[in-house]
Amino acid sequence: MTVEHHKYVIGVDYGTLSGRALVVRVADGAELASAVHEYPHAVMDTTLAATGAALPPEWALQVPQDYREVLQAAVPAAVKASGIDPADVIGIATDFTASTPMPVIADGTPLNELAEYADRPHAYIKLWKHHAGQGQANRINELAAQRGEKWLARYGGFISSEWEFAKGLQLLEEDPELYHRMDHWVEAADWIVWQLCGEYVRNACTAGYKGILQDGEMPSREFLAALNPDFADFATDKVAHTIGALGASAGTLTAQAAEWTGLPEGIHVAVGNIDAHVTAPAAKATEPGQMLAIMGTSTCHVMNGDHLAEVPGMCGVVDGGIVDGLFGYEAGQSGVGDIFAWYVKNQVPQASHDAAALAGKSVHQYLTDLAYEEPVGAHGLVALDWHNGNRSVLVNTELSGTIVGLTLATRPEQVYRALLEGTAFGARTIVETFTKAGVPVTEFVVAGGLLKNPLLMQTYCDVLRMPISIIDSDQGPALGSAIHAAVAAGAYPDIRSAAEVMGKVIKGAYTPNEAAADAYDELYAEYSQLHDYFGRGANDVMRRLKNRRREVLS
Amino acid sequence: MTVEHHKYVIGVDYGTLSGRALVVRVADGAELASAVHEYPHAVMDTTLAATGAALPPEWALQVPQDYREVLQAAVPAAVKASGIDPADVIGIATDFTASTPMPVIADGTPLNELAEYADRPHAYIKLWKHHAGQGQANRINELAAQRGEKWLARYGGFISSEWEFAKGLQLLEEDPELYHRMDHWVEAADWIVWQLCGEYVRNACTAGYKGILQDGEMPSREFLAALNPDFADFATDKVAHTIGALGASAGTLTAQAAEWTGLPEGIHVAVGNIDAHVTAPAAKATEPGQMLAIMGTSTCHVMNGDHLAEVPGMCGVVDGGIVDGLFGYEAGQSGVGDIFAWYVKNQVPQASHDAAALAGKSVHQYLTDLAYEEPVGAHGLVALDWHNGNRSVLVNTELSGTIVGLTLATRPEQVYRALLEGTAFGARTIVETFTKAGVPVTEFVVAGGLLKNPLLMQTYCDVLRMPISIIDSDQGPALGSAIHAAVAAGAYPDIRSAAEVMGKVIKGAYTPNEAAADAYDELYAEYSQLHDYFGRGANDVMRRLKNRRREVLS
Repeated sequence: MTVEHHKYVIGVDYGTLSGRALVVRVADGAELASAVHEYPHAVMDTTLAATGAALPPEWALQVPQDYREVLQAAVPAAVKASGIDPADVIGIATDFTASTPMPVIADGTPLNELAEYADRPHAYIKLWKHHAGQGQANRINELAAQRGEKWLARYGGFISSEWEFAKGLQLLEEDPELYHRMDHWVEAADWIVWQLCGEYVRNACTAGYKGILQDGEMPSREFLAALNPDFADFATDKVAHTIGALGASAGTLTAQAAEWTGLPEGIHVAVGNIDAHVTAPAAKATEPGQMLAIMGTSTCHVMNGDHLAEVPGMCGVVDGGIVDGLFGYEAGQSGVGDIFAWYVKNQVPQASHDAAALAGKSVHQYLTDLAYEEPVGAHGLVALDWHNGNRSVLVNTELSGTIVGLTLATRPEQVYRALLEGTAFGARTIVETFTKAGVPVTEFVVAGGLLKNPLLMQTYCDVLRMPISIIDSDQGPALGSAIHAAVAAGAYPDIRSAAEVMGKVIKGAYTPNEAAADAYDELYAEYSQLHDYFGRGANDVMRRLKNRRREVLS
Repeated sequence: MTVEHHKYVIGVDYGTLSGRALVVRVADGAELASAVHEYPHAVMDTTLAATGAALPPEWALQVPQDYREVLQAAVPAAVKASGIDPADVIGIATDFTASTPMPVIADGTPLNELAEYADRPHAYIKLWKHHAGQGQANRINELAAQRGEKWLARYGGFISSEWEFAKGLQLLEEDPELYHRMDHWVEAADWIVWQLCGEYVRNACTAGYKGILQDGEMPSREFLAALNPDFADFATDKVAHTIGALGASAGTLTAQAAEWTGLPEGIHVAVGNIDAHVTAPAAKATEPGQMLAIMGTSTCHVMNGDHLAEVPGMCGVVDGGIVDGLFGYEAGQSGVGDIFAWYVKNQVPQASHDAAALAGKSVHQYLTDLAYEEPVGAHGLVALDWHNGNRSVLVNTELSGTIVGLTLATRPEQVYRALLEGTAFGARTIVETFTKAGVPVTEFVVAGGLLKNPLLMQTYCDVLRMPISIIDSDQGPALGSAIHAAVAAGAYPDIRSAAEVMGKVIKGAYTPNEAAADAYDELYAEYSQLHDYFGRGANDVMRRLKNRRREVLS
């Protein structure tokens, strides 16, 4: 197969608030231009736009037409800005937030687009951060644990309220008419592909990580009936459908979609994907042992392995979940950048903000620079990074943040650094757990917004005692999608070989400082001892404090 | 004995930065007027005023003449402001910070007042917070523990670097010429009495709590020689002298002192005292079981008991240490108001300061009011109040502050409240330890600056499940001294009976709210579990963190 040197592909990354289209050269992954389109309805989390009616707490909805507009606006804008001839585009691929499911009828029309249902909140897309199905998720987890469902361990023992089954059960129990009216419960990642090529293909990634598809099966009819008799056929009737491997072609661009996008009718449309997982090839992190951490408000870790293992506290393991032919592992830290932002907003005095402004730095950068003037351990602190609970490896939302070592001499930047370090220790805990479970981590690759803090990166490098490679693109997910488009179009035989050419990484951008690593080893030992004390049952104070908080506030 | 209804006494309270004279009516304790004189040299902690020479870290010196000026300025000013006839003053008493010792020659002249020594730092007064003798204190503690000295338990197992022996040993080892030149190592509390009446009488309180005088004996010659052969005769040659009971007359006002103060020559001058302990009669807290807490930057707890017991982690027990005839117990929390001040300076964002200003409140009051809008436990937090170490009951300066339960929703005022509560839990730990050791606490009486926060007081009341009485005077120590003056002058037979008439307390100013007390019981159980985990050896992380801090900064 010959790489088509003068051809191009389009990657479209659907985020929480906007979609971004990127034009990429097939031969070398060069990024020619991009364009962004913000969703007109953004996230509906207080009121339903169609009626103005209030939404209950924890709801988060989106409008499907907003996604189509990205195809109509951002794609042509990016192509135009790139200066290429649209006729040279040979494929398009998309990635999406997940799990972001919606109810549709047989032809793919979302229920909210049927006039009679436009005023029904359950007719809309449930965005990933819709958490109103927590009660349903709890029941799923309890029942699965009780029945010893073997798929539970594939998800570290925990099915999230963000995922397809909890949200589907909520739909059934709160608006049964809509539940029965829908023909498919479709991930937005697959719906947008359906819009492009007219074919409904469930991508292996979302189906595995968010749809509890393991070894070709979903939770049994008996299990679902035990949750709710009317839910018995959910998997078979509403979810099951053709599965597409990542990088495969789902079909070709329809005349309608060609009109929207200005791209040639008939070009290949890749099977959908999740924004985190699609980034792996963009960062050339597709080989077993290469753990990619997408570090932002939280951190998502994805890594391929050549065999199936049940890693304690992982978010999931899916056959072909990152690239076809390997087992894709996922883990997560539920609070990272969010913790730093919380701290800056709630616990940093004006003096630090003033000094940052005077130095012409962001407060984050100012606190970082100041804190790192001291050697490791000079702050005398250790922090548990559980302000948003702990996903991996403890899988416990009831855990909370802790700081030990405060004195009357403790300064704001010292606590800030302890929080940065706490997240690095959390990452090391995950890495060590994978390695111990027989899925060794050999390289740590970083993408995401926190890349912009080099001292944080060096800290991770020293704490992990591992070189850190960093993605060399600001458009990780969109570039990853473009790589999938190139494979779907046949320009490369598979994702791994396409990634080698089109992916962009700075290998070993950070290397461990041995002295700092030795010092961090000692702090990590303290972290681990506190981690196990508070996290493994010796003292359940955190759970009790949260229980009490809920009780007195209810 | 008849109370002299139309007579007056003067109480003079010597603080860290100034001395305050108070005119009090003998018959009922009415406070007529007061005046303050600030020490011209304040605290010398960076340079020696006489030469401008730099002082090493941890030094804190004062100048004796500054104390005389208080007699010359504040006493006459207070008498004048009161409008009384000076001839109606029948006694004067003083209280002082402690341990605040100085080297003097036989006639009481401080060494710094000999021209040849005015340029020698060791010729000056070592203020209570002079901590440069820490190395000496460590040796005293190690040796005492090693030799099993029985007096060690009378101080909760810990002799402070602030006290007479550590400071005396530092003097010997750093300026032996001055050590040998001095005839007496005198507490400022006794030196000022010497200035007033021409008699050197060591008060039982300072001698007991700060001078390791127990059962009529000081540490043995053998012990002292083992510390340093030249220190062998320290107790007998430099310290030992007549002991005076509290409330006794040390002598009568000299002509010289009468001239300074404008008071009648020949009136009674009471034996000296410590500022904390002298406050007990002012707050009518002189009976066994009445624990007086002087709550400020730190908290000092003093309480009488009718028998001798060795309470774990107390600061000291002294026969006649608070009133003659009872055993005076002392305990302490090394950080209280200091922790709140640290938090407001270092961890409270501008938004809270702005909102406080808008509400016309101090930040402390604003945070308190806001935090207490929620029920107990709504913040989901528990804090260990060890930011300045823990005096009672763990006696460990290596401990540090800790917060458990932080989330991304935690607000600044919630952490502030958790810190307030942490100090209340610390107080309860002390109260329970005393009670368990056979010295039951039956009433909690509060004096000091933190009285101004009623919600803090109610928290202590609920946490302790005990009515809280509060002193009804802004001049606790000076009023206490005045009471001692009245007893020394013969107006009352003893301190306890004088306190009944002249002391001022609002009994049961706060009473426990049962529901809140029940809720705090649960939080206190969490505090206690963490207290013991971090404080009793299960996890020595705090000590290791401080060690590491010292190592990397050295």
